[in-house]
Amino acid sequence: MRIALVGFGVVGKSLVELLDAQRDTLLSRHGLNPKIVAVADTKGIAICEHGLSAAELLACKNAHATVGAMPAHGQLGVHADRAIRDAGCDVLIETSPSDLRRPEIAIGHLRSAMSAGMHVVTVNKAPLAVAMPALLELARYNRVGFRFSGTVGAGTPVLALAARCAQGNRIRGLHAIINGTTNFILSRMTETGERFDDALAEAVRLGYAETDPSNDIDAVDTAMKLTILANHVMGRRATITDVRREGIRGIARERLTDARTRNSVIKLIGRIDDSGMSVAPEEVAMTSPLNVGGSLNAVALDCTVGGEVVIVGRGAGGPETATAILRDLIDVWQIDFDHQHRRVQP
Amino acid sequence: MRIALVGFGVVGKSLVELLDAQRDTLLSRHGLNPKIVAVADTKGIAICEHGLSAAELLACKNAHATVGAMPAHGQLGVHADRAIRDAGCDVLIETSPSDLRRPEIAIGHLRSAMSAGMHVVTVNKAPLAVAMPALLELARYNRVGFRFSGTVGAGTPVLALAARCAQGNRIRGLHAIINGTTNFILSRMTETGERFDDALAEAVRLGYAETDPSNDIDAVDTAMKLTILANHVMGRRATITDVRREGIRGIARERLTDARTRNSVIKLIGRIDDSGMSVAPEEVAMTSPLNVGGSLNAVALDCTVGGEVVIVGRGAGGPETATAILRDLIDVWQIDFDHQHRRVQP
Repeated sequence: MRIALVGFGVVGKSLVELLDAQRDTLLSRHGLNPKIVAVADTKGIAICEHGLSAAELLACKNAHATVGAMPAHGQLGVHADRAIRDAGCDVLIETSPSDLRRPEIAIGHLRSAMSAGMHVVTVNKAPLAVAMPALLELARYNRVGFRFSGTVGAGTPVLALAARCAQGNRIRGLHAIINGTTNFILSRMTETGERFDDALAEAVRLGYAETDPSNDIDAVDTAMKLTILANHVMGRRATITDVRREGIRGIARERLTDARTRNSVIKLIGRIDDSGMSVAPEEVAMTSPLNVGGSLNAVALDCTVGGEVVIVGRGAGGPETATAILRDLIDVWQIDFDHQHRRVQP
Repeated sequence: MRIALVGFGVVGKSLVELLDAQRDTLLSRHGLNPKIVAVADTKGIAICEHGLSAAELLACKNAHATVGAMPAHGQLGVHADRAIRDAGCDVLIETSPSDLRRPEIAIGHLRSAMSAGMHVVTVNKAPLAVAMPALLELARYNRVGFRFSGTVGAGTPVLALAARCAQGNRIRGLHAIINGTTNFILSRMTETGERFDDALAEAVRLGYAETDPSNDIDAVDTAMKLTILANHVMGRRATITDVRREGIRGIARERLTDARTRNSVIKLIGRIDDSGMSVAPEEVAMTSPLNVGGSLNAVALDCTVGGEVVIVGRGAGGPETATAILRDLIDVWQIDFDHQHRRVQP
């Protein structure tokens, strides 16, 4: 399987390492022999017909901050489009950061790949947040696989679980903690009594929050993930503009200590129900399965039969997200296998 | 899809109701038109070539305690084998109680069906507990679908989630609360300070425990489910004899109050790790995601990448278990669809 990888940050690098480490298992268990043929980052691309070496890619990125500097295969100042268009790959893996101010760049990558008959695996939430219904339709039209497990819950298979719950049952609604950074900040404020600004500074110091944390604390990240859940799990043709949004920026610590007197905690909850989609800080009982600490994620599905099903797991991290991409790769490989199998049948 | 249903207790009746209620959705969404052609209970069978009416089946069962008394279609004193052998069905659904003292009866049903080229969906744990490796092989040999989602976690898709976590990652081990009755008893002892016998009596009164509760409190039920998890999730060729087993019969309330002083609770934990498979009462921190109350189930999977993933949901109930059977039915129907699709391809 010939892979074009766009984005070579924490997740992209973890994926290349994981594919290298799992090479034998993938071949013996799934008949899958992944070959990284093209890699693109913001400064350049590297292409090799016969597959790029994981070790060389990582060494070059660490030394020069771009794969464009790779001897023989690198080209500086060339855009990702070339890596998608010219490398003759079977699948595009898109791991650029989710930039909601300029989603059109990543959307362009996805559209080019699908139109060229390539499967697409993405962990970039921005294209899905603004255009998921259209992208799902484009994938169907071009008969390619389109997978995005890693966009919600990182390595925790939230989307797959929800789809499974919906088969033979109905998910009426859901509520969820799907942003680890805000959960870390709120958990810390609850435990230590710190003010918002101090807890945020600690989150930045520990690497949980970006230097510009607005995506997390203004609930943009949660709203993007909620949009993906609404489309995938509940069959709604939603985009991020459908989500009412209130973040936790500057939340008063008194609100948290007040909640505590009622044996509750404040959590940033994304919610989908009959009245629509929303994100806001909400009071959650301490005994609720959604009262998860640290940077954990928790998703509660409200099923027509059987009531609530809750999944809890780590919701971030390069290696974690890479496992979701690998799962998706195995899925789209299976599609090709099935097609081929059909073709050779009498 | 022509269905033979063996066992017509709480789960069987819930399934017939669910199939009837979901008729339109199943046809429009999955192209699936389920027809109950044969039903067997302990006292007789009912067969109708054109499909039995859900309302008539339920009315007859309620009035006469057997479907064998059904006008025109019923036969008293005839065994389930006939319903499997003579009705020309596509799939056997086995919902008899999990009787570990006489597993050979249900094993016989499964073997007959598979040998006749029928798919099998079972919620009966006993055949799997004693012969899962052999049954999986038999299904593969006969190229039929074999599904058993409802055996662990009732409607909560524990097995599907675990299989998904294992794809592209590795599950090193797991620990789980997978018996609602014992969890109810232990939760109650913790909350009220009651003795074991009183909590057990309350569980029987509320219908959580059977009049002979030994399967639950001696951990036989947990051991059966653990065996299924070991085979399905971790690829072990295990049977119930591989499980070290200690139940909660007569557990001293002092053990629970002692644990409480250490901010812990006692739970009946099934565990699979490198040292093998075991069930025993264990101390669990109150803050652990496994500290679920009432009759809930909770399964914690230990993944090589990403650490722990936990799923929590209701683990029992007729309607809940029926949704798991329906999910499995849709799966095996999909297998047939794919086969047919292949056959008609050039």
